[in-house]
Amino acid sequence: MKKHFIFLLGVVLTVTPVCAQRSAQSKVETKSLFSKVLNAERDYTIYLPKSYGTDTDRKYPILYLLHGMTDNSTQWYNRGHLKDVMDLLTASGEACEMIVVTPCAGGSIESGAWNGYFDMPGWKYETFFFTEFLPYIESAYRVIGNKQTRAVAGLSMGGGGSASYAQKHPELFSSVYAMSALMNIPAERAVPDKSAKDKRALLYLSVIENNCIAFVDKAGDALRDQLRSVAWFVDCGDDDYLLDRNIEFTQAMRRAGIPCEFRIRNGGHGWEYWNQALYICLPFVTRNFK
Amino acid sequence: MKKHFIFLLGVVLTVTPVCAQRSAQSKVETKSLFSKVLNAERDYTIYLPKSYGTDTDRKYPILYLLHGMTDNSTQWYNRGHLKDVMDLLTASGEACEMIVVTPCAGGSIESGAWNGYFDMPGWKYETFFFTEFLPYIESAYRVIGNKQTRAVAGLSMGGGGSASYAQKHPELFSSVYAMSALMNIPAERAVPDKSAKDKRALLYLSVIENNCIAFVDKAGDALRDQLRSVAWFVDCGDDDYLLDRNIEFTQAMRRAGIPCEFRIRNGGHGWEYWNQALYICLPFVTRNFK
Amino acid sequence: MKKHFIFLLGVVLTVTPVCAQRSAQSKVETKSLFSKVLNAERDYTIYLPKSYGTDTDRKYPILYLLHGMTDNSTQWYNRGHLKDVMDLLTASGEACEMIVVTPCAGGSIESGAWNGYFDMPGWKYETFFFTEFLPYIESAYRVIGNKQTRAVAGLSMGGGGSASYAQKHPELFSSVYAMSALMNIPAERAVPDKSAKDKRALLYLSVIENNCIAFVDKAGDALRDQLRSVAWFVDCGDDDYLLDRNIEFTQAMRRAGIPCEFRIRNGGHGWEYWNQALYICLPFVTRNFK
Amino acid sequence: MKKHFIFLLGVVLTVTPVCAQRSAQSKVETKSLFSKVLNAERDYTIYLPKSYGTDTDRKYPILYLLHGMTDNSTQWYNRGHLKDVMDLLTASGEACEMIVVTPCAGGSIESGAWNGYFDMPGWKYETFFFTEFLPYIESAYRVIGNKQTRAVAGLSMGGGGSASYAQKHPELFSSVYAMSALMNIPAERAVPDKSAKDKRALLYLSVIENNCIAFVDKAGDALRDQLRSVAWFVDCGDDDYLLDRNIEFTQAMRRAGIPCEFRIRNGGHGWEYWNQALYICLPFVTRNFK
Repeated sequence: MKKHFIFLLGVVLTVTPVCAQRSAQSKVETKSLFSKVLNAERDYTIYLPKSYGTDTDRKYPILYLLHGMTDNSTQWYNRGHLKDVMDLLTASGEACEMIVVTPCAGGSIESGAWNGYFDMPGWKYETFFFTEFLPYIESAYRVIGNKQTRAVAGLSMGGGGSASYAQKHPELFSSVYAMSALMNIPAERAVPDKSAKDKRALLYLSVIENNCIAFVDKAGDALRDQLRSVAWFVDCGDDDYLLDRNIEFTQAMRRAGIPCEFRIRNGGHGWEYWNQALYICLPFVTRNFK
Repeated sequence: MKKHFIFLLGVVLTVTPVCAQRSAQSKVETKSLFSKVLNAERDYTIYLPKSYGTDTDRKYPILYLLHGMTDNSTQWYNRGHLKDVMDLLTASGEACEMIVVTPCAGGSIESGAWNGYFDMPGWKYETFFFTEFLPYIESAYRVIGNKQTRAVAGLSMGGGGSASYAQKHPELFSSVYAMSALMNIPAERAVPDKSAKDKRALLYLSVIENNCIAFVDKAGDALRDQLRSVAWFVDCGDDDYLLDRNIEFTQAMRRAGIPCEFRIRNGGHGWEYWNQALYICLPFVTRNFK
Repeated sequence: MKKHFIFLLGVVLTVTPVCAQRSAQSKVETKSLFSKVLNAERDYTIYLPKSYGTDTDRKYPILYLLHGMTDNSTQWYNRGHLKDVMDLLTASGEACEMIVVTPCAGGSIESGAWNGYFDMPGWKYETFFFTEFLPYIESAYRVIGNKQTRAVAGLSMGGGGSASYAQKHPELFSSVYAMSALMNIPAERAVPDKSAKDKRALLYLSVIENNCIAFVDKAGDALRDQLRSVAWFVDCGDDDYLLDRNIEFTQAMRRAGIPCEFRIRNGGHGWEYWNQALYICLPFVTRNFK
Repeated sequence: MKKHFIFLLGVVLTVTPVCAQRSAQSKVETKSLFSKVLNAERDYTIYLPKSYGTDTDRKYPILYLLHGMTDNSTQWYNRGHLKDVMDLLTASGEACEMIVVTPCAGGSIESGAWNGYFDMPGWKYETFFFTEFLPYIESAYRVIGNKQTRAVAGLSMGGGGSASYAQKHPELFSSVYAMSALMNIPAERAVPDKSAKDKRALLYLSVIENNCIAFVDKAGDALRDQLRSVAWFVDCGDDDYLLDRNIEFTQAMRRAGIPCEFRIRNGGHGWEYWNQALYICLPFVTRNFK
C-alpha cells in the first residue's frame, strides 16, 4: 500500500512526465556549423516544436531570433525562457508550432569575441548569415522556407540586426519584431575613428553604416513598396536608453508611409522586458505567417 | 580620441552602472540561521530593496514568499526573477519597496531533504517558522513588523503553505497570494498509511491534516470574521493539475462569506506562470499594506 | 488666412475623415427578416468590415455573436462597442476582417418578448436560427459559409446559447467563445412546473433541457470526437453569479477529454467584462479560422 | 408554486439588487453651478463612490477628469463608462474609493460653445476652474482637499489641460494622467492670426500659449523641483495623430530630469483607448494618493 501511494504521489507532484518517450516534447539544443566566410565554427541554439520529432514529414515556419551584444546563442533560451513561452503559447493556440533559431553573433567582447550582425573588415557576419547560416538551417531542419513563413526578431543589437536584415531582404521575411533595438548608435556619442581596429569600434561603425533610420529615409518608392510587404513591430521600454532611436525609426516609417506597430511598455533594457515581449512577438509573427 | 570613444561606448552599451558604489541597488543574498526546533541549519534567501543600504533608519514592509516542493530558497530568485520584477515594479510605483524573504522548506526529497511547511513527526517546520524564523528575520533586518505591513505568498506547496499560515494567523498577515496552491492533496489519490515514515508520506499527511478547504468550512463565525481581515487572492492556471482544489477553496470562501479574489490565467504548473503571477502579486500585497 | 487656418484645424482636431466617400469604413446596421417558423419579423444587427463595400467580390468569415436575456440585437454594438473593438483589432492585425451578426432573441420579457435560443412550445427559435436565419445571412451577405470560417460566441443567455449551438452542430463552427455563460440554470433554484406557460418559465425550462454540462457528460465517444473539432473558450468573472456553472462545464469538458480554454478574470456579470472579453474573443476566433 | 418560481428567477437572472435601499451603490449625476468669472451656468458630472451615501462623515480623495474638444461633462460617464470601471476596480481594490468630477469645458464649437481649459479673451476658464469650480466642489462634497489626495487626468484637449494644470499648480495635485494629450497644437499647422476672434482660433491660440512642452523646457531648477513632487503619466496610442507631441513632452521631461511614466499602446484617438486607459489611470492615481 505504501509503495503504491508513493508511486502515485510521484506522478502527481512532479511536472516531469513519467513516460517521456511516449509524450512528444519540444526541445532546445545548441549545435554548431563551420563557416567558410568567417573561417570559424559558429554555435547556434535551436528550438524544435513538440510535434517535430513525431510528425516526421511536416515542415515548419521559422523565426530567426537574434541576441544582444556580449550575449551568445543560449541566452534567449536560458534567461528568455523561449521554450517555456513557446510551449505555453502553442498549447493555447496563440502561437503556431515553429522552429526558432538563434545564431551566435557575440560573446564577451572584452575577451576578444566578434559581436555584430553586419559585415565588418575581417568578419563578414551578414554574408555568413544569408549565404551560409540561413541556407544551412533550412536544409538541415524541416523548414518550409519561404517569405510567408519566415520571420526575424531580436533584442538590442539583435533588434537592430533584425530590422536591418528585413530592410535589406523584404523578400525573405513576412514580419520583424524589434525589441529595445539598436536602430542606430545613441546620439551625442563620440564616433570612433574610421581607422579604428578594435572589435567594439568596428561594431560601432557597422551599426552607423547600417543605420535603420537613415535606411528608411533614403528608400525610394519601389523599395518602400517592398518594405510594406513586411509586417513591422517596434517595442521599447519607457526607461530604455535606446528609446529615442526607436522613436526616430517609427517616425521615419510614418513619414515613409510604411505601417509599423509601435509599443512603449513599462521598463528598461533588461530581460524581464524581453521575456514579456515574447508574449507579444510570437503571436505577432504567427499572425503574419500565411 | 579612440580611447575616449571606447570609454563612452562602454558606458552606453552596457547596463551595469559605472559607479555602482554611488548608485543604490537592490540586492539578493542567501544566508542561514540555526534552528533549535529543527536542530538544523536552515538557508533563506532575501531581497533587500534599493534604498535599504542607504536609508539606514528606514523600516520596511515584508513579504514571505514560499517556494514549492523539491525547490529550495533560491528558485524564486534564480528562475522566478524576483529581483528583476521587484526592481521594475518599484521603479514604476506599482509595488512599494519591501523586503522579500524565502525560507528553505525543501530540497531534493529523493536525497533525503525534508519538504513542507507544517509540523510533522520529527520536523516541526511550522513551529520553526513562527517561533524562530519570522522573529529572527524581523529583528535581524529593518522590518516594520506588524500585520498591516506583512504579507505571505507562495507557489504550489508554498501556495498551500501561505494560505494555511494566514488561516492560522490572520492577526499576522494583511494579505495572502496563493499561486497554483496545494490547498489539499488532489482528489482520487491514495492516502498514505498513517504509520508511514518516509518524508514524502509525512509531507502528504501533513497537507491533508492542514487542508485549507476544510479549514474554511469548519471555521466558526468568530474565526470567519478574523479571516475577513486578510485580503485573499487565489491564482491558478487553467491547465494546472491542482486547479480543482483551488476552485474548491474559493467556493468554500464564498460559502463562508469571506471575500477572495480568484483568477484563472492561461497555463499550467510552471515557472512562466509564477513569474507572471509576481506582476499581480506584488501590486496586490502593496495595495494591502496600510 | 483665417479661413485657411480654420479649415486645417478642422482636419486636425476631429477624427471624422474629410473625404469619407473615398475612405472605406466598417459599418453597423440593424435590419430584419420575416421568419415563417416564428411567424414574426425578427431584427438582427450586423457589422460589415472595412473592405466589405469596396472589395465587392470578396467573401468573409462570420461570427454569430449572441446577446443576453432582455437584451436585443443592438446592445453588443451600443454598449459592447463591437465596431470600435473590431476596427482596432483588425487595424493591428489581431483579428481578421469578418462579418459579425447578432440576431434578436430577446427584449423585455416583462413586456411580453420571447427570450431564448432554444425551441420552446410556441416559439421554435433554434429551428429558426438554423433553418432560416443562418442560411439567410449567408446568402444575403458575402459569407464564405463553411465550418472553417464560422464561429459563435455570446454572453450570459447567449453564452449558453453559443455553447449549446456548437455542441449540437460541431460540423458548423470552428470555435465558440462563451462569456459569463448560462450553461445551466444556477443550482438551488426552484424548477418551474413543467406545465408553466409564461415566457420566463418556458425559457427556464428550455435552458434546463439544453443543459450544456449534462450534454458533455452524456456524449458518447463519437460525439466527443466531433466536439474536439471545435475550439472551445470559456470566460467568466470571479464575481459572476454564474461562475459555478461555468466551472462545472469546464470540469465536464476535462472529464470528457475535450480541450477547452478557461479563464477567470476580475469582475461580475456586466458590460465592462464583456467589452474586454472581445479583445480575447476576436483574436481567438480569428486564430481558429482556417 | 409557479409564482414562487418566478420571483426566484427574477432574483437570479437580473443584476439589479432586489433591495436597493439597503445596498449602497455608487452614483453619477450631472449638476451645475453659476460662475461669476464666466457669467454663465456651467454643468459638471460627478461620480460619488459606493460608501458616500452611507459613511456620512467620511471624506474622499478626488480626481478631476477632463473631457476632450466638443465633448461635454457627460461623455466620460456615457461612453467612457467611468462608473462601471470605478465600481469594478474599487471592488477588487485596484482603485480606492474616490470622487471623480468632470467640469464642462466644451460642447459643439460649431454651435457656439466655448471650448478649452485656459483663459481666453472673454472666457477665463482656467480662472473659473481654480477660483470657483475646485473650491465649490471641495466644499459642496466631502472632499479631503489636499495635494496628497487630489489628482487630475484627461483626454485629448483635457489631457493637455490636465498636464498644464499640474504644471502651474504642482502644489495642488499628487498625480496627473494625460491621455492622447493635446500637449501643443500639432506641428505643420497654420497658426491663426493673433487678432482672430472665433472660438476655435481662440482655443488654438490658448493651447499654443500654454504649450506643455515649452513649459518644461523653460522651467528653472526650483520649478523643476516642484514638478518632481507630482507623479506624471503620459499614455498615447501608436496611431494617434497627437503622438509626436506626446513624445516631445516626455523627451522634455527626460531632459529636465522629471520622472514621467510613458506608454504607447495599440490604438488611435478614440474611446476604446480612453476606456482602457481608465484601468491604468485609476490604479495610478490611487497609488499616488498618500
